[in-house]
Amino acid sequence: MRATTLEETDRDTVLLDTAVTEALRGPRGANPLVGAVITAPDGTVLATGHHRGRGTDHAEVDALAAYRRRAGQESLPPLRDCTIHITLEPCDHHGVTGPCSRAILDAGLGAVRYAVPDPTGPDDGGAARLAWHGVDVVQVSGHHGAAQLNRRWHRARMEGRPFITAHLAQSLDGRVAAADGTSQWITGGPSRRHAHEVRARVDAIVVGTGTVISDDPRLTARDAVGADLDRQPLPVVQGLREIPGQAALRRADWLHVRTRSPQQVLQTLADQPPQRPVRHLLIEGGPTVLSAWIAAGLVDELFLYQAPLALGDGAPGLTALGVQTLTDARHFDLDPADGGSIRRLGRDVLLHLTPLDHPCDQEDHVHRNHL
Amino acid sequence: MRATTLEETDRDTVLLDTAVTEALRGPRGANPLVGAVITAPDGTVLATGHHRGRGTDHAEVDALAAYRRRAGQESLPPLRDCTIHITLEPCDHHGVTGPCSRAILDAGLGAVRYAVPDPTGPDDGGAARLAWHGVDVVQVSGHHGAAQLNRRWHRARMEGRPFITAHLAQSLDGRVAAADGTSQWITGGPSRRHAHEVRARVDAIVVGTGTVISDDPRLTARDAVGADLDRQPLPVVQGLREIPGQAALRRADWLHVRTRSPQQVLQTLADQPPQRPVRHLLIEGGPTVLSAWIAAGLVDELFLYQAPLALGDGAPGLTALGVQTLTDARHFDLDPADGGSIRRLGRDVLLHLTPLDHPCDQEDHVHRNHL
Repeated sequence: MRATTLEETDRDTVLLDTAVTEALRGPRGANPLVGAVITAPDGTVLATGHHRGRGTDHAEVDALAAYRRRAGQESLPPLRDCTIHITLEPCDHHGVTGPCSRAILDAGLGAVRYAVPDPTGPDDGGAARLAWHGVDVVQVSGHHGAAQLNRRWHRARMEGRPFITAHLAQSLDGRVAAADGTSQWITGGPSRRHAHEVRARVDAIVVGTGTVISDDPRLTARDAVGADLDRQPLPVVQGLREIPGQAALRRADWLHVRTRSPQQVLQTLADQPPQRPVRHLLIEGGPTVLSAWIAAGLVDELFLYQAPLALGDGAPGLTALGVQTLTDARHFDLDPADGGSIRRLGRDVLLHLTPLDHPCDQEDHVHRNHL
Repeated sequence: MRATTLEETDRDTVLLDTAVTEALRGPRGANPLVGAVITAPDGTVLATGHHRGRGTDHAEVDALAAYRRRAGQESLPPLRDCTIHITLEPCDHHGVTGPCSRAILDAGLGAVRYAVPDPTGPDDGGAARLAWHGVDVVQVSGHHGAAQLNRRWHRARMEGRPFITAHLAQSLDGRVAAADGTSQWITGGPSRRHAHEVRARVDAIVVGTGTVISDDPRLTARDAVGADLDRQPLPVVQGLREIPGQAALRRADWLHVRTRSPQQVLQTLADQPPQRPVRHLLIEGGPTVLSAWIAAGLVDELFLYQAPLALGDGAPGLTALGVQTLTDARHFDLDPADGGSIRRLGRDVLLHLTPLDHPCDQEDHVHRNHL
């Protein structure tokens, strides 16, 4: 590995920007977002790729596949003369898919530039193996976009817990039920389908005892026509109350964790047998449960579905967050990953949010509301 | 005036679609949204125009100006061979600007197609005058987009009241203050600037006594650097409590209407001296006042500013709307007018909404929320 020149650095920055944009097309979850760009010796972009979530090709492999599809149609420079820019160091381990270091060597790619070191540790990264095999491999450090791309994913990993997604479907005025408790038709069909796509990604879904008792959810992941998918998340009920014997979520596997504490739920999930690790967790609510996870700083990604209606009364979607005064508010950022930060789903609006760690840095965020 | 052929009708529909899209670029308020399209004899669009709000050119005049700018650069067919499609019948009265029927006659336009009759009454519309002067003028009836364009504006006019815009700046969880009552920095600078643009359009601003006592707003319309604009809305305070003698809104003109009833506020405003009619009213809050206007069906347009933060406690932005059960919810539609239905303003998200009159027609809006 060697140092790069200033001109190379500028080009690297631009290409890593492209790789970050590509990475943001993927969904967040058990795996980090990764994007890759393959360029010709003259800098022309020949192919891009990104990771589409657990069990699918890694970004490098996806980009190589795109290169090969294109090479079947037209004449491209050979891969030995090409460079791949990747937002993350290629992996060197066998997970669900093979190691990317192997794929890059097999493809004969001439040069590799990556931004963030493999988070599984210095011995596991693929850069050393690539260099040992004579590939021109350089870490391009200091790329802000690549470093930020998986900020919460790295944090979850550092804390030894799953990546945690939360779901909240509410009215414009932040309520999840009307005054009489009716709650089941707030958001529309397209929002429900999106929520099932999210369910299909996760290993387990947490709901409170109150939700089980009032709504009796099945907590299954279903396809567009309502049929159960093959791979189903583990239903986890959090709370002190008893679960009715005929509850719909009593399936082959389910858990009741008799606690109000998110940390205790995580501990229980960590102690599960290793055949079915919980690496991506979905918090569906209700309000008490969801608020406890947000208050604990344990929500990495929030899907906020807003139905275009107002109720004026009824249960709010979020309750005690431990916020007494405005400066202690829980701040979020719009998250551009996975289809964009703001989406219309039928008549609803979906906000895709990620918690902001340092709201005080956001100076433009401070003004008098009524003047 | 004569009947049109089927082929003409198809072309009229397409051109009125374009005129509606054009109209939606304007702001809602005292005047209806209007769009216009001028086409060559072969159907080519030569110019478009729209109304940008009270005191600015009407859509026909705006389109004629666009035609003339273009005609100064290139050779265009003369206006006598051209057709103008307008979403609304040209006016025939002198308001702030001259009558559009006159402008069309002066320009020598050969043909006029309009969708919706002039709402000021059968004697006031410009179509009859245009026909009398030999212009080929036809009302194209049944254009849904044009009919819907000013649905709430027509309703306000029919009810003999101003067009009513409402403003609500809240957290993601629908709160306008934290548990300790702090409320003044919820949304950011770009949202505040937008709110001042809206203030600059209106004739009067309604706030509750509670807002005056807690926030002491000036209720002035200010430009981007914070300087007061020449034309200022009338501050109107609604409620039973006394207004402090040093309240910032005690300016040359202001009103205190000692009532909780929106209808009584409207009555008082209707009885004001005619030099300063209130044709566009802004409801700024707080929650009790805003909820009363929404519950009375008197909000035509809602700007909902959402700051990306959660509070979990504190005053909700909407309170009693008279909704007991979910099927009685107050439904809204996203309003594409005036810059779009969903906008990012700095870190905030602005939803532009209009009340939906018949939510039961929206079948896709009904599903079970948790399954």
